[in-house]
Amino acid sequence: MIDRLNPGRRYSDAVTHNGVVYAVEVPVSETADIRNQTREVLAALDATLALANSSKERLLMATLYLTDMADYEGMNAEWESWLPIGAAPSRACVQVCALAHPGWRIEIAATAAVLG
Amino acid sequence: MIDRLNPGRRYSDAVTHNGVVYAVEVPVSETADIRNQTREVLAALDATLALANSSKERLLMATLYLTDMADYEGMNAEWESWLPIGAAPSRACVQVCALAHPGWRIEIAATAAVLG
Amino acid sequence: MIDRLNPGRRYSDAVTHNGVVYAVEVPVSETADIRNQTREVLAALDATLALANSSKERLLMATLYLTDMADYEGMNAEWESWLPIGAAPSRACVQVCALAHPGWRIEIAATAAVLG
Repeated sequence: MIDRLNPGRRYSDAVTHNGVVYAVEVPVSETADIRNQTREVLAALDATLALANSSKERLLMATLYLTDMADYEGMNAEWESWLPIGAAPSRACVQVCALAHPGWRIEIAATAAVLG
Repeated sequence: MIDRLNPGRRYSDAVTHNGVVYAVEVPVSETADIRNQTREVLAALDATLALANSSKERLLMATLYLTDMADYEGMNAEWESWLPIGAAPSRACVQVCALAHPGWRIEIAATAAVLG
Repeated sequence: MIDRLNPGRRYSDAVTHNGVVYAVEVPVSETADIRNQTREVLAALDATLALANSSKERLLMATLYLTDMADYEGMNAEWESWLPIGAAPSRACVQVCALAHPGWRIEIAATAAVLG
């Protein structure tokens, strides 16, 4: 069974299937610095995972897209502050040329396990 | 069990495991505009998903790589026209520096549920 | 159940759940050419997959991030030499602007099936 959270014309906020939830989060603000935008993205991910019967303790894989690798340490400071000890997912982090909104500095795609 | 569709030296056209199919599609043409290239990619994805006993109604996650974010709206017009209402996957969309062929403007990696 | 290999503050070396392992590998060296860096990444992936009760024969999906598409053929030479015939995963390959360390020319995110 496939469970879609808020399916829109372009994407759903999350999709759950076979015990795994897939979610992508972007910042709320387009002018904030990397620490604020990372906090926004992680707060959105918390909310989405909760609605999908999952949580940051159950992350499996995360792909972090930054628009400037100079933001790497600022992103990591927020990431490490947010992530519970012992719950780190597999993680890729790359600098892309652009995200869909010019002011976005970070986008995170994540998969997590859902409670059975 | 792992089922590979057309395994080559570099990649398979699709790989199915545990009820999920993984597929990556690129354009046929290297000179077409974004709308045509998006249509080509989505037609290829339809064909691959059908061979894997899946379909666009069962998409879980899609990662869209564009080479120019100016193509975003053109891509979305085709994407929305193609995607059935209520079936949107989780979706990430980023602008990368280049794809494997210089003329490609889009590449899509997708996962979808297969019929049991 | 979620099984994390070497969970750190930022990432785990691999995460296994529901018969699938998620892993991301980067080069050891920051000055080597693409062939050497690709060999390093693939050797690291072999080691990680072995610890996760999987192997390169069980790859499902791979995302290859290059920092220069001029490295494409060199990467492919090592990739084809490494990959067993008939075991190719679904594969996306894109050129990003930068990876987390300036000298890295390649990063690979992979998912593979684990032995039941």
